[in-house]
Amino acid sequence: MTSPEFPPYSVRDLSLAESGRHQLRLAENEMPGLMALRAEFGETKPLAGARIAGSLHMTVQTAVLIETLVALGAQVRWASCNIFSTQDEAAAAVVVGPTGTPEAPAGVPVFAWKGETLAEYWWCTQRIFDWSAEAAAAGADWTGPNLILDDGGDATLLVHRGKAAEAAGVVPEPADGDSAEYRVILDALRESLADDPQRWTRIADELRGVTEETTTGVHRLYELAREGELLFPAINVNDAVTKSKFDNRYGIRHSLPDGLNRATDTLIGGKVAFVVGYGDVGKGAAEALKGQGARVIVSEVDPICALQAAMDGYQVARIEDVVGQVDIFVTCTGNLGVITTEHMLAMKHLAIVSNVGHFDNEIDIAGLEAIPGAERIEIKPQVHEWRLPSGRSILVLSEGRLMNLGNATGHPSFVMSNSFANQVLAQIELHTRIEEYPVGVYTLPKRLDEKVARLHLDALGVELTTLSQEQADYIGVPVDGPYKVDHYRY
Amino acid sequence: MTSPEFPPYSVRDLSLAESGRHQLRLAENEMPGLMALRAEFGETKPLAGARIAGSLHMTVQTAVLIETLVALGAQVRWASCNIFSTQDEAAAAVVVGPTGTPEAPAGVPVFAWKGETLAEYWWCTQRIFDWSAEAAAAGADWTGPNLILDDGGDATLLVHRGKAAEAAGVVPEPADGDSAEYRVILDALRESLADDPQRWTRIADELRGVTEETTTGVHRLYELAREGELLFPAINVNDAVTKSKFDNRYGIRHSLPDGLNRATDTLIGGKVAFVVGYGDVGKGAAEALKGQGARVIVSEVDPICALQAAMDGYQVARIEDVVGQVDIFVTCTGNLGVITTEHMLAMKHLAIVSNVGHFDNEIDIAGLEAIPGAERIEIKPQVHEWRLPSGRSILVLSEGRLMNLGNATGHPSFVMSNSFANQVLAQIELHTRIEEYPVGVYTLPKRLDEKVARLHLDALGVELTTLSQEQADYIGVPVDGPYKVDHYRY
Amino acid sequence: MTSPEFPPYSVRDLSLAESGRHQLRLAENEMPGLMALRAEFGETKPLAGARIAGSLHMTVQTAVLIETLVALGAQVRWASCNIFSTQDEAAAAVVVGPTGTPEAPAGVPVFAWKGETLAEYWWCTQRIFDWSAEAAAAGADWTGPNLILDDGGDATLLVHRGKAAEAAGVVPEPADGDSAEYRVILDALRESLADDPQRWTRIADELRGVTEETTTGVHRLYELAREGELLFPAINVNDAVTKSKFDNRYGIRHSLPDGLNRATDTLIGGKVAFVVGYGDVGKGAAEALKGQGARVIVSEVDPICALQAAMDGYQVARIEDVVGQVDIFVTCTGNLGVITTEHMLAMKHLAIVSNVGHFDNEIDIAGLEAIPGAERIEIKPQVHEWRLPSGRSILVLSEGRLMNLGNATGHPSFVMSNSFANQVLAQIELHTRIEEYPVGVYTLPKRLDEKVARLHLDALGVELTTLSQEQADYIGVPVDGPYKVDHYRY
Amino acid sequence: MTSPEFPPYSVRDLSLAESGRHQLRLAENEMPGLMALRAEFGETKPLAGARIAGSLHMTVQTAVLIETLVALGAQVRWASCNIFSTQDEAAAAVVVGPTGTPEAPAGVPVFAWKGETLAEYWWCTQRIFDWSAEAAAAGADWTGPNLILDDGGDATLLVHRGKAAEAAGVVPEPADGDSAEYRVILDALRESLADDPQRWTRIADELRGVTEETTTGVHRLYELAREGELLFPAINVNDAVTKSKFDNRYGIRHSLPDGLNRATDTLIGGKVAFVVGYGDVGKGAAEALKGQGARVIVSEVDPICALQAAMDGYQVARIEDVVGQVDIFVTCTGNLGVITTEHMLAMKHLAIVSNVGHFDNEIDIAGLEAIPGAERIEIKPQVHEWRLPSGRSILVLSEGRLMNLGNATGHPSFVMSNSFANQVLAQIELHTRIEEYPVGVYTLPKRLDEKVARLHLDALGVELTTLSQEQADYIGVPVDGPYKVDHYRY
Repeated sequence: MTSPEFPPYSVRDLSLAESGRHQLRLAENEMPGLMALRAEFGETKPLAGARIAGSLHMTVQTAVLIETLVALGAQVRWASCNIFSTQDEAAAAVVVGPTGTPEAPAGVPVFAWKGETLAEYWWCTQRIFDWSAEAAAAGADWTGPNLILDDGGDATLLVHRGKAAEAAGVVPEPADGDSAEYRVILDALRESLADDPQRWTRIADELRGVTEETTTGVHRLYELAREGELLFPAINVNDAVTKSKFDNRYGIRHSLPDGLNRATDTLIGGKVAFVVGYGDVGKGAAEALKGQGARVIVSEVDPICALQAAMDGYQVARIEDVVGQVDIFVTCTGNLGVITTEHMLAMKHLAIVSNVGHFDNEIDIAGLEAIPGAERIEIKPQVHEWRLPSGRSILVLSEGRLMNLGNATGHPSFVMSNSFANQVLAQIELHTRIEEYPVGVYTLPKRLDEKVARLHLDALGVELTTLSQEQADYIGVPVDGPYKVDHYRY
Repeated sequence: MTSPEFPPYSVRDLSLAESGRHQLRLAENEMPGLMALRAEFGETKPLAGARIAGSLHMTVQTAVLIETLVALGAQVRWASCNIFSTQDEAAAAVVVGPTGTPEAPAGVPVFAWKGETLAEYWWCTQRIFDWSAEAAAAGADWTGPNLILDDGGDATLLVHRGKAAEAAGVVPEPADGDSAEYRVILDALRESLADDPQRWTRIADELRGVTEETTTGVHRLYELAREGELLFPAINVNDAVTKSKFDNRYGIRHSLPDGLNRATDTLIGGKVAFVVGYGDVGKGAAEALKGQGARVIVSEVDPICALQAAMDGYQVARIEDVVGQVDIFVTCTGNLGVITTEHMLAMKHLAIVSNVGHFDNEIDIAGLEAIPGAERIEIKPQVHEWRLPSGRSILVLSEGRLMNLGNATGHPSFVMSNSFANQVLAQIELHTRIEEYPVGVYTLPKRLDEKVARLHLDALGVELTTLSQEQADYIGVPVDGPYKVDHYRY
Repeated sequence: MTSPEFPPYSVRDLSLAESGRHQLRLAENEMPGLMALRAEFGETKPLAGARIAGSLHMTVQTAVLIETLVALGAQVRWASCNIFSTQDEAAAAVVVGPTGTPEAPAGVPVFAWKGETLAEYWWCTQRIFDWSAEAAAAGADWTGPNLILDDGGDATLLVHRGKAAEAAGVVPEPADGDSAEYRVILDALRESLADDPQRWTRIADELRGVTEETTTGVHRLYELAREGELLFPAINVNDAVTKSKFDNRYGIRHSLPDGLNRATDTLIGGKVAFVVGYGDVGKGAAEALKGQGARVIVSEVDPICALQAAMDGYQVARIEDVVGQVDIFVTCTGNLGVITTEHMLAMKHLAIVSNVGHFDNEIDIAGLEAIPGAERIEIKPQVHEWRLPSGRSILVLSEGRLMNLGNATGHPSFVMSNSFANQVLAQIELHTRIEEYPVGVYTLPKRLDEKVARLHLDALGVELTTLSQEQADYIGVPVDGPYKVDHYRY
Repeated sequence: MTSPEFPPYSVRDLSLAESGRHQLRLAENEMPGLMALRAEFGETKPLAGARIAGSLHMTVQTAVLIETLVALGAQVRWASCNIFSTQDEAAAAVVVGPTGTPEAPAGVPVFAWKGETLAEYWWCTQRIFDWSAEAAAAGADWTGPNLILDDGGDATLLVHRGKAAEAAGVVPEPADGDSAEYRVILDALRESLADDPQRWTRIADELRGVTEETTTGVHRLYELAREGELLFPAINVNDAVTKSKFDNRYGIRHSLPDGLNRATDTLIGGKVAFVVGYGDVGKGAAEALKGQGARVIVSEVDPICALQAAMDGYQVARIEDVVGQVDIFVTCTGNLGVITTEHMLAMKHLAIVSNVGHFDNEIDIAGLEAIPGAERIEIKPQVHEWRLPSGRSILVLSEGRLMNLGNATGHPSFVMSNSFANQVLAQIELHTRIEEYPVGVYTLPKRLDEKVARLHLDALGVELTTLSQEQADYIGVPVDGPYKVDHYRY
């Protein structure tokens, strides 16, 4: 796995691999879905020939996913999709591989470490598309991946923007309102265009599809499809029930308090917590905070979700009306600017401000940095006190990025086993039945969704009841499912 | 409102009207959705010309629905869709009307009382299709209703079976396994065929559509549509989010413990409760029982719902494995035979057996009645002790029918205001834009679903947040909604 | 059981006895503590010779208590301790007795019916002290009871006030602020003094003790003891853990929503509920409302309880600051005037006002009645709309008296089995070991408290763990308990 | 702060002080009780002249306590009471002090670091009694502390055992069953006796009292008092309501899932958790696990607590009956051997075994180590996989010691502010009013308990209601409290 120009992998420290391997081993016990897929498909290797460019938080759980993809026959390169979310020991373990050593790594090329700069981040993302070493080793006629496994859509974005720039022959200048991050991307593309004016066009042509993990990434895909710009078929893994209703909800229920605790050790009980957005993520966040004895206030723009929040016993208010009473803010919207500098200036002393929804623009971090006189003090990595001209401080977690990844270790293995089993099944679908997927955005068929759920029941001691034929006929479903109409909401 | 052959209405006792009117007045305060529709459409009367045959539990809440339909210009005839669910004082108040007196009723013809026999039930259902008095009064060329408002699909079933029988020229003989109820329907149709061999054909021809309230009724409609037998367009009100996720879940959360308490006064706390089925109804049932301190065990056939139950903290088991530990059984499946006689014989002494899902075949009541030596003792109406050959007794509520209606007063007004606002909007859709609805089954557009939610927020003190144009653009929705993709699950 | 002057019993209708007996039979299954005491002491009859004057809500559960006292050898006369709380069919069943018939009643003399006037109430209370019929039948030298079983302390109050008046030779004139009820008591005493100037002195002399059920009654007893006016020993049953922490908390958790539902059918979910007082009763009330999806606000005067409420996730506020947002008020304080007319005038239209704490002075009902222009409309018995000069109405339940008894059927059997098992054990203590109880107020020893708990475990399927001798020694307790120091708070 | 023989302090690394100081500053914001005491008593310095030997987990919160004691005038020396619980940066910050530097520390002598050996632990504990440096600096006639602030009773135990050994002239030989730890203590005492045969006698004579934090320590004190061996008065801080009902319950509710998450990252939702013991700690543990979606099973020996667990909705079972279904074990008993090697051998693969109750004998760690063939693998510090002859592994947290301290950072600041405010008030009581405390064990008066609660309300936005004089008189309490009888259970 050498490459002439770039290092064959780039992680913090391979000596962390042993510790990482211990954690992988424990995680495997908590990821029955992935292990069942290894058992089911380890022989037939349905992913043989798949070259997967993965961009997804490089955690212990993702390590089990990567090794499952490999067990099913795929070749893989990997980057994280967030500058703070890498667990360095997991990255090391994946590079070393189950049979390698730090001195002779025998695993998968990973480009990720905790605490990347934005420039480093996009450098890493570009590395997962550079398969020159693999191609050389195989004497192949291909040069890049044929599948993307994406989370948030950055890898997919890069390909689409890259090809567009190459078609235009020029990378657009950043506009006034563009984010710092977008400028970094444009710089990277500009460099690429100068270096090789057909790189992304070539990569795009070889790609057969993408499977996408998140609400945000899926949203981008539907937009691309609507505008006729989508370059290859996409499977929306996010909207599998066993993803959106499990990862988004139960994952956050677990990892939100975990992140708050590791970051601040602040008692949650008795405090006033404000949850911005009551979608699946917000529902999980509110439940977790309530379960710890917080008084939860929710804000919503969607009247249906707002009514749900009220019926679940939460006060539903606008942030500006209660901002001064709140101890803990959690944004869960996937939108931008839901906590503004004006809000931050009105907060209590040492109010905690955190995001589990989306990007760092959900909280206006750029605006915060621009407040004259605001002073940033690092309490510990990913925990910053901002002293504000209001005379008060606020505590910002993970610099406004996903705190459950930046301050904790992300969603726990069991939840991710659901999401990742969907990812694996989606990759198999695209790799083995691509002819059934013209360019467009697809969700997984319900039978696969039910299969993913089924793979996780034993581990929880769940005893499933079986329909009799008479009962199945009565409600008009096969005895073995699928059991619900497509629009069923669970 | 006289008719030559039949009484103009048939309820328990018109002197109950004053008490019923008090309750209607209180219910109006709890049904902000319906009252808002009266305010919005009371002038323009979009239902002028609508002749609605309603078959839906004749409760206080339904009375507010009926008077809302009238306020919007409709003519209405009404029956209950369950032999036990009528609140006699509500029925009386509707017949008397807001301006009438028991001596000079000026309201709507209702045919319903608590405790109908099956034969009476189907007689009542036939009455809502007999508009001869209204037609005569209007000197009209029509003879029946042009819309059905249905709950469970009995009214719709009757029209479809009636027309089919008339086409065949004969009513089929009951088969061996047919239920007692089905035999009553066949008898009624046989009589009708003898009396007027084109009655149902004529009625079917005049009908422009149906709006259906329940999972079960909707299921029947999709079957009819799939088999090409559906006679007119149908709007599936059940699957509006503000219906299925509110009525089914929050309604049961309220009315299940209410029914248990009124029926038995048994402490729920500390008891073992078994919830059969973890759909929306089961979720509400489990939450209510847990909220009262019961230990809840769930059974499921669908692995996704089973996994949800486990993640929500419930034991998931098969009924046969735990039947002897359970104090309270609640069926929530919409399927048949989920509690069998074998189960009932294995239950604890005085275990409570109840159904909030569907028909009385969900619990095998027919099988129970057929157990040799089983003795039925009426503790009070709708509460029966069955002494079994096991030497133990069980307590069966509402003879296996919907106990939240039979033992309590059904879902509370606020929940029903959501469901019924959907019904009203669906009736308006069919009446005013029928050309957009070819024969088929439709759900309400999301904008109406969000509208229904919006109408209920003020009453709960919910303050909705407004998207900025920038935020709306960022997530690609209009500022005023709809806010979600169609497949969003809430 | 005839008496020259007064009827031998006074209940609504003996023909209700059969229905009452059915309910007693079901309740016996839910009262394992009382049934276990019948089994343990039915032979030895430790209450032989006890003549118990009982003043406690005449419900189905109390009927099982009464028949338990009888089974243990006692003679009993009974009145209710609340004008609304009697279940007439239970009263009838107790009078008829398990072996009697309505025509030939063979049970216990009960003086109670649902909906007594205040004058009737105190007439009934006097009847439980009039044992002339029993004395005549026995040819006895005693004339009254030797034990009181009290709830709220009315029976005990009457004896103390009666004896005091007889000592003074005069009944005091009512003062300006005295309640209507107190005036009724004074009238009754005045009549008694005229009729027999030594009646209460004689009754007091024969009494050996009282066992008291409630916080309020116990409070009065401690006051009497502190002022040296207590006439006989008293056992404080209220402060047994298996009473105060079970009846007060879990009983209210059950019966509060039951009362709200039967009274109003209003959806609790999504509503704002205000719980005045966060003692055991308030804790149960808040939990029940939260379990139904209400948003609960608590008020408190005690900083420790206030802190508990906050840590349990509730907003803690003063009533005057939130009164206009609240849908449901529940008072749980045992104090007076916690909801004032000023508060009531500021409430939302049709806010529900109810009391589960204590007397009807907890809500200022007298003040409400005195508001000029306030109009009272009976929606149904125990549910009154008050139209106020504010232009709004409020709904007052049970005229401000205990709504869980007035609007529902009180605490469920299982909870009362705990409380009443304590009562029975306390009566046995006083009757069999009176020499150990000089005049004063006592709580039951912890071993009896643990015994009561133990009697209820099997019915809930609880498997208790047993200490090894080594473990018992390590923590310094006997293997069989008691397990905790006296000040342990559970 | 130099001493001839021993280092003046002993912590991991003074360069951690800056980071520790940041955390102290944040913690001060979360410890309103301690900060209010600094404000109230900072001027008058009621602890002037107090020489406090502190033995309590050396965490960030304890650092705020220590600096509060100093602010009130006390001199302090400190050790941790657990080998794993020290937060090294907090220890460093306390040594450096708010005004010192790592080069010129100006704080309090601390002897504690995370991961002490048993021998080191007892060496540290001895250091808090060695005030030779302070005495020399003051030219004082005293030689040791005059007060102990204890947690678990180790410091108190050492004094009592030391003095007893000196009286006997010999340290007893360890018996066969004695723990490894006890042997270490005996060794330490033997060395001390050889070195200075009157050291502990002298120390004991100078001590005026102890304030004790925990159930276990308090239990030892009551035993000493019962056996007449207690050497000085003791205040039982543990049984203040604002300690036992807050620290024990709400503290564990917070820190148990925190410890589980940091140790294992295992999803709690959907898992079966087994809580041994349902006292205050067990109640908090069960609530936390339920709040995260676990299915909780409880075991109990006390029938009252068992009944509470059932009424709170938990299954109550014996460990041996369900051991094979459980994913997470948590012991909360304060007893020994509640999880035995037999239990451990029967557990699921990778079941998590943890203790939040007491010592490492609560789980039979010694027995585990003695299982032939059992292999211990360190996953990370304080997390060990034990491969058992059963072919399965279990995960043992913190080697069976308190995992909320070993795997997390202990109870959060806000909870500890309650407990520690009680400690400070108790130290003031002993120091300023010692004459009112003859040798014996005392709880704090209720007025101080209410005061502690009151100090914490503002921070949570709690608005307390004030009794009117009429209301206070009605219930017979002062307007300003105390509000409850002593036996009130909260």
